[in-house]
Amino acid sequence: MNCLEARIVKDGIVKEGNVLKVDSFLNHQMDPELFNEMGREWKRRFEGKTITKILTIEASGIGIACIAAQHFGVPVVFAKKAKSINLDGEMYTAEVESFTHKNKNQVIVSKKFLNENDHLLLIDDFLANGCALQGLIQIAKAAGATVEGIGIAVEKGFQAGGQIIRNLGYQLESLAIVEEMNWETGEIKFREQ
Amino acid sequence: MNCLEARIVKDGIVKEGNVLKVDSFLNHQMDPELFNEMGREWKRRFEGKTITKILTIEASGIGIACIAAQHFGVPVVFAKKAKSINLDGEMYTAEVESFTHKNKNQVIVSKKFLNENDHLLLIDDFLANGCALQGLIQIAKAAGATVEGIGIAVEKGFQAGGQIIRNLGYQLESLAIVEEMNWETGEIKFREQ
Repeated sequence: MNCLEARIVKDGIVKEGNVLKVDSFLNHQMDPELFNEMGREWKRRFEGKTITKILTIEASGIGIACIAAQHFGVPVVFAKKAKSINLDGEMYTAEVESFTHKNKNQVIVSKKFLNENDHLLLIDDFLANGCALQGLIQIAKAAGATVEGIGIAVEKGFQAGGQIIRNLGYQLESLAIVEEMNWETGEIKFREQ
Repeated sequence: MNCLEARIVKDGIVKEGNVLKVDSFLNHQMDPELFNEMGREWKRRFEGKTITKILTIEASGIGIACIAAQHFGVPVVFAKKAKSINLDGEMYTAEVESFTHKNKNQVIVSKKFLNENDHLLLIDDFLANGCALQGLIQIAKAAGATVEGIGIAVEKGFQAGGQIIRNLGYQLESLAIVEEMNWETGEIKFREQ
């Protein structure tokens, strides 16, 4: 059991409807020491790959991505969820449906910060149906950048996102893959990695 | 000139209407090495203060706060801008007007993550009229927590926010205070610190 799985067992809360709350250490309150361990593990798993930039999506991907980026020595770009008057110039856009919020968002990245010379590591906190990740992949493609790998904190292994992304040929490294969880007993089963 | 001021001179772009774009290193593309220097400087400026937690606001405060938190050895909590179905239970709320987006947001923090034993460092990327910061202060007060200090990356010294916050008695440490900027020449004048 790695550090993230152990932390999920300790502090994660299983709720009815296959909801896993990890907001005490991952996506509302955040533990930078844990993020540092996660960054070290992604660095190990993507050993040998050339990464020039990390691409993530606001809001909860940003902290994880910034600390992981310290292990790769690269900048981070985050996709923004709404149009801002400060984001002038041309931008890459993709439409993303949120599982959590049950709505659709336009996500945007300024064309200034991604191009065909970039070798990207995509980072996000959660992977369920994969919509956010598909949006990031779409933006990477539009920029002509290469997606070298994808690092996810928690994957819901019983939803389709992970398999779809792996079937597309991407190296997807989820640090914790939840196979099953039981909200009545609180039990969580992880996929062996 | 500190590392942030130097970076603003090098990569910041002054636009008409007193807009300073720092999106190539601070709030769209992000430079974790710069954030690390900023964290070190805040640690120095708040030397001797007991900090138990960093409180910030999504989205562009998160990366800076997470890396700064490594220097203080504390967790980060970020205030969220919209109600989420994953944020059940009781929460602290404040209303915040955005200078950039010209709209009002409810910002919320779960009551689980702030209480009267917390000694907070508030961190954000920008301080202009101070509305976001006032929201965070309001939330800290509602929790009964102590605001030990406030760390801002870029303060617009010609707007009222900084003076209002300092007049309230808070130790506000802005790493770059822009006194004047000229969009025609691109010149930026910083306050001597």
